[in-house]
Amino acid sequence: MRPRCSVYIATSVDGFIARPDGAIDWLPGPDPVIGDFGYEAFMASVDAVLLGRSTYDLVCTMDGWHYGHRRVMVLSRRGVPVPEAHRGKVTVHAGPPADALASLAAHGCKHVYVDGGVTIQAFLAEGLIDDITITTIPVLLGAGRPLFGALSHDVRLELQSSQSFANGFVQSTWRVAHPVA
Amino acid sequence: MRPRCSVYIATSVDGFIARPDGAIDWLPGPDPVIGDFGYEAFMASVDAVLLGRSTYDLVCTMDGWHYGHRRVMVLSRRGVPVPEAHRGKVTVHAGPPADALASLAAHGCKHVYVDGGVTIQAFLAEGLIDDITITTIPVLLGAGRPLFGALSHDVRLELQSSQSFANGFVQSTWRVAHPVA
Repeated sequence: MRPRCSVYIATSVDGFIARPDGAIDWLPGPDPVIGDFGYEAFMASVDAVLLGRSTYDLVCTMDGWHYGHRRVMVLSRRGVPVPEAHRGKVTVHAGPPADALASLAAHGCKHVYVDGGVTIQAFLAEGLIDDITITTIPVLLGAGRPLFGALSHDVRLELQSSQSFANGFVQSTWRVAHPVA
Repeated sequence: MRPRCSVYIATSVDGFIARPDGAIDWLPGPDPVIGDFGYEAFMASVDAVLLGRSTYDLVCTMDGWHYGHRRVMVLSRRGVPVPEAHRGKVTVHAGPPADALASLAAHGCKHVYVDGGVTIQAFLAEGLIDDITITTIPVLLGAGRPLFGALSHDVRLELQSSQSFANGFVQSTWRVAHPVA
């Protein structure tokens, strides 16, 4: 049984997760009044994090380590240099999405946070995403790195919850309706 | 003073308003229990409708006439053949967006429903949209005609309202924050 795979991400109203160069300057941090929009609660529910290469590059520019003792795997066909500070915290996986999940399952992982646009698109295309939480930021960027990509068929979703915050963010969670095999 | 311009449209979660060939088969009609998701109330608030060429082609395939006595203008640089049944109901405008609005204003129009992806993108790019209501349908299409396009700069939005419906639709309305001149 593969682990449950969740997406938790912010986009502009026009569906971008970053500017063309990867910048996320348009993305506000935690709100002093509202808090973190459920991020810590979500993180508390996962026991592993799967990152795409670009997202890991971004993580490498940040101070500190945000994933606690969770198993963190970076997906990259070509390999990724892991900085000294991350040794023992990060493994790099060169295989396809299902193999990465099998490896995490073999380590007892039950709920994986899948992060990064290209990685999310690959997992969605292979039917490996179970739920998607999108926090929509009230801005149009006009260009950037899209959250979603091509699919071989429609993917039906089921809305689980939707709420708006006083600062204008809208956060919705959908369950992916997997076709019955 | 130009008329207020509103967008009222449905998209997939990945931001498409139609499949690549223009099909909207994935878009459910009014719900027998929930109703029309506010469409008639919105229509009652507008006194003119501005359609792009593709949207008008779609309207031409539909039975009946859905715009009542409102002034309906089709934007097209190349001209559009208007079928017999629409004579006297539709005018075709070949000029740029601001000219079309000036023409509607000269006829006393105060609130315009701007419809069609290409047309909405052109109006947004020129700062002529005042509010945007998007009803998000719980499906990923993977490809199609996008609601949004390129912009020369960020467009800040202000959330006015957001609600979800029992069938899983999420409807949000944003006001466009026009920069102070």
